[in-house]
Amino acid sequence: MANQWIDNERLTGQISFLVEIDKLKNVLRKTFLMDKSRLENTAEHSWHVSLMAVVLLEHANDPELDLHRIIRMLLLHDLVEIDAGDTFAYDTQGYLDKEEREQAAADRLFGMLPEDQREEWMSLWREFEDGLTEEAKYAAALDRLQPVIHNHYTGGVSWLKNGIVKSQVLKRLDPVREASDTLWKFTQEIVQRSIDQGILLDDPIAKEV
Amino acid sequence: MANQWIDNERLTGQISFLVEIDKLKNVLRKTFLMDKSRLENTAEHSWHVSLMAVVLLEHANDPELDLHRIIRMLLLHDLVEIDAGDTFAYDTQGYLDKEEREQAAADRLFGMLPEDQREEWMSLWREFEDGLTEEAKYAAALDRLQPVIHNHYTGGVSWLKNGIVKSQVLKRLDPVREASDTLWKFTQEIVQRSIDQGILLDDPIAKEV
Repeated sequence: MANQWIDNERLTGQISFLVEIDKLKNVLRKTFLMDKSRLENTAEHSWHVSLMAVVLLEHANDPELDLHRIIRMLLLHDLVEIDAGDTFAYDTQGYLDKEEREQAAADRLFGMLPEDQREEWMSLWREFEDGLTEEAKYAAALDRLQPVIHNHYTGGVSWLKNGIVKSQVLKRLDPVREASDTLWKFTQEIVQRSIDQGILLDDPIAKEV
Repeated sequence: MANQWIDNERLTGQISFLVEIDKLKNVLRKTFLMDKSRLENTAEHSWHVSLMAVVLLEHANDPELDLHRIIRMLLLHDLVEIDAGDTFAYDTQGYLDKEEREQAAADRLFGMLPEDQREEWMSLWREFEDGLTEEAKYAAALDRLQPVIHNHYTGGVSWLKNGIVKSQVLKRLDPVREASDTLWKFTQEIVQRSIDQGILLDDPIAKEV
């Protein structure tokens, strides 16, 4: 078989998988790089948020977190976007079938790996998605916080472009409140400073009245 | 102080660092993405090679490797390129002052972190650079192997563009030979297939005679 590597079926599947996931570098997010030169892609986002997890670990409320599992979760958590695309955090329509699209993507992508690895990766991905363990909660907190830092330091370019207001950002950041008192204090401060600087809009007053 | 976050000096330094390292997303390598659409940047390369380390761990000769340390090493090993730039693997001139440039970069970048973290990160980076531990050797093997896989699957575009020949590639891949019998077998096969397909040039015969 032409695609077989050194008569090793496990390695052959693994190499195919590693070639396939290169596509994540072409999945664009709504977040801009700090220098505003272009949109961020999901592969580099995954790298950034993994390093955030390492740097900020001491601020987690739970001092017993398994950092190794957190990093592996963050490295793979967005692989499903290769098929399912990046669903913008504030796209309520896109969220309707997000779960279904992403499950199909996970089945196809992790299905390229040998069975034991497939199960391990699927389980790490599900752990992140379900958000029930302390590790998943901390990982989700950073995943939500990262674009807010980007938005703050880029003059709110993605918030303003997409008409996002304060209450949407704070709601989205709720996992931070659960995971870390310190990072939640930071979150409130960065949101407030953004409003003071006019780069994030406060909620419209009594819009529905 | 305007840049102080929630009166927390540690967090303030950590956030500055996390903002600064965003620049790695703009450091371009000589490797093309699998779809040849553009050059790869070092941030997404770091993500890719970290996941490679997870997927291919079973093939390491040493079964007792500390994967957690390997991943952290790979996530941060190229941060120095923010200041020092990416030195092309086959650029002998660039390698002359590479160490000096990169040490200055490490001092500046890791210097933004609180002291205990600075020391930890510096030591992880030095471990990778020195390449003496089994973890550093395995990490280096993947760091060298990743662009070869890219080159093979992109029709050797970067090899041909830069006039790279077989012996240079094999020399560069020597860490793979040390770290993994299986991956070294794979390396030899992927290099041979690339030559058979005419996307990597064999060495010129008796060039010096």
